[in-house]
Amino acid sequence: MILQANSLLSFTEKVCISAGMGPREAHVFAESLVHANMRGMDSHGVMRLGAYLRRIREGVLAVGAEPEIITDGDTLLSVDGHNGVGVWIAQRVMEQCVERAGEKGVCIAGVKNCNHFGCAAYFTHFAAERHMIGFAMANSPKAVSPYGGAEAMFGTNPLAVTVPAKGGVIYDLDMATSLVAQGKLILARKEGRSVPSGWGVDAEGNPSTDPAAILDGGTLSAFGGAKGYAIMMLIELLCVCLAQGMPSTAMGSMYGQARPQGTGFVLGAVDYSRIVDADTFETMAGELIASVKSSRTAPGVEEIYMPGELEARRFERARREGIELSDVVAAELTSLGEMYGVPFTSACAL
Amino acid sequence: MILQANSLLSFTEKVCISAGMGPREAHVFAESLVHANMRGMDSHGVMRLGAYLRRIREGVLAVGAEPEIITDGDTLLSVDGHNGVGVWIAQRVMEQCVERAGEKGVCIAGVKNCNHFGCAAYFTHFAAERHMIGFAMANSPKAVSPYGGAEAMFGTNPLAVTVPAKGGVIYDLDMATSLVAQGKLILARKEGRSVPSGWGVDAEGNPSTDPAAILDGGTLSAFGGAKGYAIMMLIELLCVCLAQGMPSTAMGSMYGQARPQGTGFVLGAVDYSRIVDADTFETMAGELIASVKSSRTAPGVEEIYMPGELEARRFERARREGIELSDVVAAELTSLGEMYGVPFTSACAL
Repeated sequence: MILQANSLLSFTEKVCISAGMGPREAHVFAESLVHANMRGMDSHGVMRLGAYLRRIREGVLAVGAEPEIITDGDTLLSVDGHNGVGVWIAQRVMEQCVERAGEKGVCIAGVKNCNHFGCAAYFTHFAAERHMIGFAMANSPKAVSPYGGAEAMFGTNPLAVTVPAKGGVIYDLDMATSLVAQGKLILARKEGRSVPSGWGVDAEGNPSTDPAAILDGGTLSAFGGAKGYAIMMLIELLCVCLAQGMPSTAMGSMYGQARPQGTGFVLGAVDYSRIVDADTFETMAGELIASVKSSRTAPGVEEIYMPGELEARRFERARREGIELSDVVAAELTSLGEMYGVPFTSACAL
Repeated sequence: MILQANSLLSFTEKVCISAGMGPREAHVFAESLVHANMRGMDSHGVMRLGAYLRRIREGVLAVGAEPEIITDGDTLLSVDGHNGVGVWIAQRVMEQCVERAGEKGVCIAGVKNCNHFGCAAYFTHFAAERHMIGFAMANSPKAVSPYGGAEAMFGTNPLAVTVPAKGGVIYDLDMATSLVAQGKLILARKEGRSVPSGWGVDAEGNPSTDPAAILDGGTLSAFGGAKGYAIMMLIELLCVCLAQGMPSTAMGSMYGQARPQGTGFVLGAVDYSRIVDADTFETMAGELIASVKSSRTAPGVEEIYMPGELEARRFERARREGIELSDVVAAELTSLGEMYGVPFTSACAL
């Protein structure tokens, strides 16, 4: 099934309003999911809508909650997410970081009592569109073992950084610090596919290609061996100690028992125009990106990509040609539409 | 040859003063080298002294230079390193970052016209000892190809972050974003050893175990595939666009032709006590570290380490038992001692 992006956005937004979200909250949340689909990050797209809505129905995800600054440290903010919708809380906090960075140069916010924030690039794009470097990280329910370990101690702990640049291609990192995002395993399980060896191990510590065996009792691996584990551990430390989030080991799951997740976010913005003319900064960034992209490729490689470049191309294609949803996801949306009184097929088919 | 740390420090300091450094500059520079040896990072220790001194004699490394703030953006500083000794410039800038972070919460400095800053943990320790998160990164002469590429576009672009914690073990990352540090290849070449396959490729792009073949015309690989390349690219962007350093591709080498390097540094400090009681922060960090260290290990693994933990143990052992130098390095120091009128053997042998 192929849908127009705006139709899918409109459907998702209406369902979220019907589920109790405010109009802007519903718009931001729905746009974040649809943008993920448009960028080819289906694992963070509308396939997750049902899980979020179930948590709202269960009363463990507070629609309408707004972030509250608990301690205002000028360039550092300690924020309580009040168990709100993760995407909405993160977006509101990033708006404050961008405003504060405009006044002070830098702003970093630690946010506690949060829930899954979806695709982190959504927030860093907000900063980058305002000519700032945006960054976002979160911890998440335990799924990944430390380097040399066999017990899940970390979430997939995503990291996003967007750096504006002139010339058409920006630096736009949004990655799990596990070797693969857990969402890719969830999608594979939902669609009945096996996964490549190396993504994770089963409960006994043996390599597995069965996403269910990895998700249920097994662990994922961090990217990049000891060095990638170090990046993942740093995110955990910041999300727990600076943001006062729950440790990944104690965090509630989106898919497990019905309780608030307690996720910690660290979000921030850097207004480089304080020390470098913004046009100069972005021109230099564009030139550096172009030089890397035009460097000699390894045998068999057609093109060198910036982080997020393929996603940006998919986004533009989806804008023109629509979003393809699998039958499983389309059926789920149809059923959610019935539950929330928003017809799916008639509203959305291209 | 085994030397007392203090003897090696005293010798190195005297040689540096004889080479024209001021007393505090010589102390900081010498301590950074000796600390690297003590931490087992021999590749960044006194084996590099000769190369630094040669550059001073060639007039391409400015002893006595002080960093100058070009643009004071409150929480962002644009600094000119005036081609000074990298370790000294970075230390002086970190001192300013810590002072400013104490006033503002966060301070990030971009520093241009710099030279190799040695072991980056030296500066981040300075921040951590003052109950702040310290971070440091630099770009460096081209040696590493992008993911999918075959041309050296990046340096080994090191990243260091230190997070204070109670309980004896801190988080103390100091890594090259290449799979291995170039210094390890330089040391292997100096000592006539081959290196494991996978560290890099030769000029034709073929995997090589000959450090000379990798260093001369070949390229290193980034750690962690596409994700590690993304971290390396981010460091390059920040060091070029925010710090206004030379791109790695245009940067002077410590070992190549006699010209200033033009390295860019990004240094910073975060005073977490602005939003979280420092004792609480460090207690939570210590508990999180302890929980990860005590988690179940994979078969065949004895212990899970924090980044920098092994280095800290080596440091304590070196403090008690002295520093072991290879014959090649000891001979080089003897010869440098003769050149600068500071006898090596009598001053240093344990």
